[in-house]
Amino acid sequence: MVGLLVALGGNALQRAGGDGSWRESRQQMARVAPVLAEVARQVAPLVITHGNGPQVGVLLRENELAAAEVPARPLDVLGAETQGQIGFLVQTELTRALRRARVARSVLTVVSRTEVRPDDPAFRRPTKPVGRFYTEGEARLLRKEHGWVLVHDVARGGWRRLVPSPRPVRWLEGHAVRELLRAGLGRRWIPIVAGGGGIPVVRRRDGGYDGVEAVIDKDLAAALVARELGLSELAIVTDVRGAAVNFGRSGERWLGEVGREPLARWLAQGEFAEGSMGPKIEAGLEFLRRGGRRFVVTDIPSLPRALRGEAGTRVT
Amino acid sequence: MVGLLVALGGNALQRAGGDGSWRESRQQMARVAPVLAEVARQVAPLVITHGNGPQVGVLLRENELAAAEVPARPLDVLGAETQGQIGFLVQTELTRALRRARVARSVLTVVSRTEVRPDDPAFRRPTKPVGRFYTEGEARLLRKEHGWVLVHDVARGGWRRLVPSPRPVRWLEGHAVRELLRAGLGRRWIPIVAGGGGIPVVRRRDGGYDGVEAVIDKDLAAALVARELGLSELAIVTDVRGAAVNFGRSGERWLGEVGREPLARWLAQGEFAEGSMGPKIEAGLEFLRRGGRRFVVTDIPSLPRALRGEAGTRVT
Repeated sequence: MVGLLVALGGNALQRAGGDGSWRESRQQMARVAPVLAEVARQVAPLVITHGNGPQVGVLLRENELAAAEVPARPLDVLGAETQGQIGFLVQTELTRALRRARVARSVLTVVSRTEVRPDDPAFRRPTKPVGRFYTEGEARLLRKEHGWVLVHDVARGGWRRLVPSPRPVRWLEGHAVRELLRAGLGRRWIPIVAGGGGIPVVRRRDGGYDGVEAVIDKDLAAALVARELGLSELAIVTDVRGAAVNFGRSGERWLGEVGREPLARWLAQGEFAEGSMGPKIEAGLEFLRRGGRRFVVTDIPSLPRALRGEAGTRVT
Repeated sequence: MVGLLVALGGNALQRAGGDGSWRESRQQMARVAPVLAEVARQVAPLVITHGNGPQVGVLLRENELAAAEVPARPLDVLGAETQGQIGFLVQTELTRALRRARVARSVLTVVSRTEVRPDDPAFRRPTKPVGRFYTEGEARLLRKEHGWVLVHDVARGGWRRLVPSPRPVRWLEGHAVRELLRAGLGRRWIPIVAGGGGIPVVRRRDGGYDGVEAVIDKDLAAALVARELGLSELAIVTDVRGAAVNFGRSGERWLGEVGREPLARWLAQGEFAEGSMGPKIEAGLEFLRRGGRRFVVTDIPSLPRALRGEAGTRVT
């Protein structure tokens, strides 16, 4: 199938250093939406996914501050809540932008669960800090009571919970959205799926899938979603115009059209920052290795030109 | 189209008087899910909707308690969050129950927006109390700054915000789900839609739809959803086995098979409690008036028998 998956980074949804208000999120998305509407005029199917880091952090913080009155909810449940919240945000602003651009398409948010393997090595070595800081005594208690892994943050003088970041292996709702696209609905609908990488779930022996407290890399999840939908293109949208070698050093060079082999070599050499450009390049290469035709990484203003081959970093 | 919409009341999702924990919500849903799986074995399409009263109350309370650190989010956004949360809850337990019952169907949650009219008289006369209690001074300020309507609760000695409860007129995602069912996907997928009555939105002149702070009656929304999907049956699941006349008084009589005319008369005579059985009967009658074939109101244990015509209150 032809078609494009656009993966929106956190900055598309919330302005860095802003006040974090809903009004500001809407303003930010109102700047992003016309670009997506322009893409929607030309590309079908078009599917959107997004990160949820800052948003799930806010929900966790609220849950912590309300601890005396309201029971804690697991991280996977908070992730599900951000899918509703951010899906609604994107729907609201993109619906408006589509009408203004006279593009007759609507926006549909599907709550998405992403299966991870219970024997993923990440579960033995949690790496992602989440939530508030604890005292050493609290940390000891949490370790004992909940089996949490906590790490001492020397600079900030406290202990913090670590959660694992397992690899996404299957998107449980993928089949339904694929059928929806096959039935020709991809010309009229733009699905928003796998927000925050999807709610992490593991399969149980009884055939059920239970949520697990983990963080799924949203770029790897995007590669999975694009593959499961059989889309030909993956565009990861971030806050820089593309990937660069010698980034921020002498000899810095922004990459335009680039081959898989040199890119894989630079990735292996550590040219792309961990937790930033690194996972995006990794996701893009995985997408291409498994049958994807084109991978683009760029920022929102450059997205339409990047899709025309005139901006951003492009790999085919 | 044949097919059934099941509207789950709050009690199906959260035990009254419980601790409100996620574990408890799962246990409660784990009791409900096998019944739904049994229904799913026999009925297709099957669509599920649900209330969100207690859940949106919790999110609002957390948002209030975190006010010093985290900006307030509007009620419509909190509603969107509960759709993700509750959709995931129902998916988790229903997926398990379907596997156990060897019913080969999956569960899909669609974030749903419900259009209301900006000139709905409810906006001039808000009636639903939400959120914390305020002092008289705070109430005056909130009225002035945000245009809120507040009411003095004499018994509890404080002021409380009132939000409107406008009538649902259109479900924005209805078209996509209808097409999905038409494409034959209703045999394999069970959509969860319009949680909490849907996120209330109003249409703007530019063609966009903005969220509004309001509460949509989930039973009226259920009638709308069933109609938009062209389903033949609507089952409203609550905590009593059916509707009754002279409820709790001498001459109490539980209604089984009953005609539209006597039911409408009893409704007009105030036989069914406002905010409880009343809106359910109203929603059922509206569903039948607009082409629905059968309306059932009952509790979870009686649902399968009610659908066979052996329990609950049934109107054709």
